[in-house]
Amino acid sequence: MPDRRFYKSVGPFSIVELAQISGAKIANQHYRKILIKDVAAIECAGPEEVSFLDNPRYIEAFSKSSAGVCVVHPNRAKRAPDGMILLLSEAPYLAFAKIATKMYPDLDIKSEQKEQPMVHETATFGRNTDIAPGVFVGADAEIGANCVLEANSVIGNGVILGDDCRVGPSVSIQYAIIGSGVRLFAGVRIGEPGFGFATSEQGHFTVPQLGRVIIGDDSEIGANSTIDRGSTTDTIIGKGCRIDNLVQIGHNVVLGDGCIIVAQVGISGSTRLGDYVVVGGQVGIAGHLKIGNGAQIAAQSGVMNDLAPGKKYAGSPAVPMRQWINQAAMLRSMGRKKVKKDG
Amino acid sequence: MPDRRFYKSVGPFSIVELAQISGAKIANQHYRKILIKDVAAIECAGPEEVSFLDNPRYIEAFSKSSAGVCVVHPNRAKRAPDGMILLLSEAPYLAFAKIATKMYPDLDIKSEQKEQPMVHETATFGRNTDIAPGVFVGADAEIGANCVLEANSVIGNGVILGDDCRVGPSVSIQYAIIGSGVRLFAGVRIGEPGFGFATSEQGHFTVPQLGRVIIGDDSEIGANSTIDRGSTTDTIIGKGCRIDNLVQIGHNVVLGDGCIIVAQVGISGSTRLGDYVVVGGQVGIAGHLKIGNGAQIAAQSGVMNDLAPGKKYAGSPAVPMRQWINQAAMLRSMGRKKVKKDG
Amino acid sequence: MPDRRFYKSVGPFSIVELAQISGAKIANQHYRKILIKDVAAIECAGPEEVSFLDNPRYIEAFSKSSAGVCVVHPNRAKRAPDGMILLLSEAPYLAFAKIATKMYPDLDIKSEQKEQPMVHETATFGRNTDIAPGVFVGADAEIGANCVLEANSVIGNGVILGDDCRVGPSVSIQYAIIGSGVRLFAGVRIGEPGFGFATSEQGHFTVPQLGRVIIGDDSEIGANSTIDRGSTTDTIIGKGCRIDNLVQIGHNVVLGDGCIIVAQVGISGSTRLGDYVVVGGQVGIAGHLKIGNGAQIAAQSGVMNDLAPGKKYAGSPAVPMRQWINQAAMLRSMGRKKVKKDG
Repeated sequence: MPDRRFYKSVGPFSIVELAQISGAKIANQHYRKILIKDVAAIECAGPEEVSFLDNPRYIEAFSKSSAGVCVVHPNRAKRAPDGMILLLSEAPYLAFAKIATKMYPDLDIKSEQKEQPMVHETATFGRNTDIAPGVFVGADAEIGANCVLEANSVIGNGVILGDDCRVGPSVSIQYAIIGSGVRLFAGVRIGEPGFGFATSEQGHFTVPQLGRVIIGDDSEIGANSTIDRGSTTDTIIGKGCRIDNLVQIGHNVVLGDGCIIVAQVGISGSTRLGDYVVVGGQVGIAGHLKIGNGAQIAAQSGVMNDLAPGKKYAGSPAVPMRQWINQAAMLRSMGRKKVKKDG
Repeated sequence: MPDRRFYKSVGPFSIVELAQISGAKIANQHYRKILIKDVAAIECAGPEEVSFLDNPRYIEAFSKSSAGVCVVHPNRAKRAPDGMILLLSEAPYLAFAKIATKMYPDLDIKSEQKEQPMVHETATFGRNTDIAPGVFVGADAEIGANCVLEANSVIGNGVILGDDCRVGPSVSIQYAIIGSGVRLFAGVRIGEPGFGFATSEQGHFTVPQLGRVIIGDDSEIGANSTIDRGSTTDTIIGKGCRIDNLVQIGHNVVLGDGCIIVAQVGISGSTRLGDYVVVGGQVGIAGHLKIGNGAQIAAQSGVMNDLAPGKKYAGSPAVPMRQWINQAAMLRSMGRKKVKKDG
Repeated sequence: MPDRRFYKSVGPFSIVELAQISGAKIANQHYRKILIKDVAAIECAGPEEVSFLDNPRYIEAFSKSSAGVCVVHPNRAKRAPDGMILLLSEAPYLAFAKIATKMYPDLDIKSEQKEQPMVHETATFGRNTDIAPGVFVGADAEIGANCVLEANSVIGNGVILGDDCRVGPSVSIQYAIIGSGVRLFAGVRIGEPGFGFATSEQGHFTVPQLGRVIIGDDSEIGANSTIDRGSTTDTIIGKGCRIDNLVQIGHNVVLGDGCIIVAQVGISGSTRLGDYVVVGGQVGIAGHLKIGNGAQIAAQSGVMNDLAPGKKYAGSPAVPMRQWINQAAMLRSMGRKKVKKDG
């Protein structure tokens, strides 16, 4: 369920209304007349919430889900748990997106911002916290003690920041709950909407991004890096992580504690890293993967599969380090032979 | 011709003056005594404009050009169309750069900005548009209705924004004309000068960038992405595109409608993508290429040639997907054999 | 020695105090009772300064160092020059980090920023320099003549900017000394702390970054690029360089004059490029390398070794260009054969 701190639902809706909004068809001839109050991810949806199944990776979670209602392709209806009310659609992600858009019609309450001062009167600050000129702090933001907010940074409505944090110049933070001792360097973007849309013949339909970014104590994020907020669940950065400059972290990604992410890495949506994972510069990691605790990935690798804990990987596509060393040696040797033969 | 909305020429200049400015030599002993009012790209230059030929890819366009004057290497003079006045130079790009610099001597009228308020009095706004604190809006900017400009964003002089647009915190927009329903997330940079310079023994001479950025309706651009303005023509993003975070789009690039560009992609100058092209994360595309409608490029590919419509590609350098699958399989197998043999 | 313009030491400390702060053990039974006033890199530390040896690449420099005191692993103590006082530690980088943190306890003098105006009263400006609305200029900053500071840019305390510079919207500059005619495009981040930390069982301990960024005359830096400040020495960009968008330059990197760095390149810490090096888009260069004058590196290469001057390289890992062409041709041919055989 989206955090009421950041998002306001206009629900509840009846099942019939959800069917009308989404264009999906109610599968169950006889069903309980319940009211649906919210949207949620399939793993955590409850009896008064509507979810969806699109990516086949989540069929197992769907089978075990407690969601009251789920939008699903007709072919997968038979995998539903008992008692779940199904909304059948050929394009379940699009149908869900329409429901979420209806339920959260106006994510950004515009009128409240009119003639707003730079620091909103409802924002609170701990002792000894410094606010440089040009800093914007939105309504109901809670900033801890001994923080420094550098010039022209932007703290959105409802954001929570712990003690001893440092926010660099021109940083922006939205939809985020941040621990203590966190340092965000210049130009960091926390909490922008993830890359989520449902594609149909009419083009790309944007899916509302209703999650948050959670950052653990003592983590540091490098200049101009971007961490998108979750779609319905959260994007989570563990404690004591070190993230370098120009890194992209997609929606719903989870990083364990103490991860090291070198510059210009990209981690795609919903991928989960364990603790103390080390990711070399310019690595790309595909979505929905699991990277084990302490795995180490060499620079410029392209990760397309789950990786085991404690092992080293390299290459694009990434393979175990020793295998990659062989590949690289053989390639080099082939290239050299050819040069000699030509010469 | 550069848009008078953003750029002011101090021309016209005579052919003799152009020769003096550029250090080039007039090829034609007898020529019409015309005045040259402007600079333009070779494909669209008219009889009162001066252009140049440098990259051999554009010889064909040169042969058909209606440019009144063209700076060109002596070796290529024979390919000129009848009636074109030629300025011969061993370094035609540098010579042209000197002309463009003379014609547009002061791109940024500094004095007008003195003691300017955050929102210029000549800027206009549609109904129900919200301007957060710290937002700068320059002279003659035109903002549509129902827009939201978030805190500390910067809208440059003359920029046009349609209705229902959303500009995130710390975004900057310059030299751009933007449609309706466009969303630009935090830290996006629209309209910075492209990477253009002519190199000589004296170093790199910056070429004035005199084009614009045009963005179609309903496109979305992710956090901290950068879209440079055109050099003399425009950089164009079609309708309904989805561009992720930290993407770089070079000057004069053209994207069709509905393109999907995943995070950290780089598209080099003057490359043209058709409609509904899909570009995976961290892909690099070289300059001056054509990518057909609906082509799909896998993550981390490096594209060095034109790509056919509707096909899938992968690898660096990029090859058809099936070929790349074979390459990757053989590499993996070579690496594994070596490991076994060693073991 | 850190520049007093930006950093204030609370030293001096005695050798015994340094041992207590760092948890290291004094190796020399009899030693001169000196006071240590500062921290410094091993190559440039003097008799009243403390340095450290961690990366084995610097053993040679350690052997020749004039540092009064050095934190070093016991195994390497025998390589020390005569007269150097040694602090022995199993984790010398961590031990040094603790000393540096103690010596520079409060890098950011917070109280001075309270109720500060956007432009500090001690900042100075040359003639005809324009400051757009929303620009922050810190204490003791020195801005030259004929500069343009665009809207919402941030110039930190003590920064020096030469004449004829242009600072784009939302740029931030800290701990930097910048020449004349330099152009920094929108969202550039100059002088953020480098990616430096010592890892122990307690997690990652941040190492204070006490250096600067030095940028030579007439260089240009593209939108949203990041140049971290040095750790104890400086990050240096030569004269007349052209750096494209979204480039990452790590701490202590040195670029010669006239280098061309295309978009999305990453250069790791302490690597040194000669003059007129050309680095293609999305290249990654590992740390502590030397790239010779005029070397050219093709797009998407991964550089793991020193490169000779004047030569061309490609591939990941990077090899001489001709060798890479062979590799790529053989890979392509293997992929094609497989396709044919299958078909």
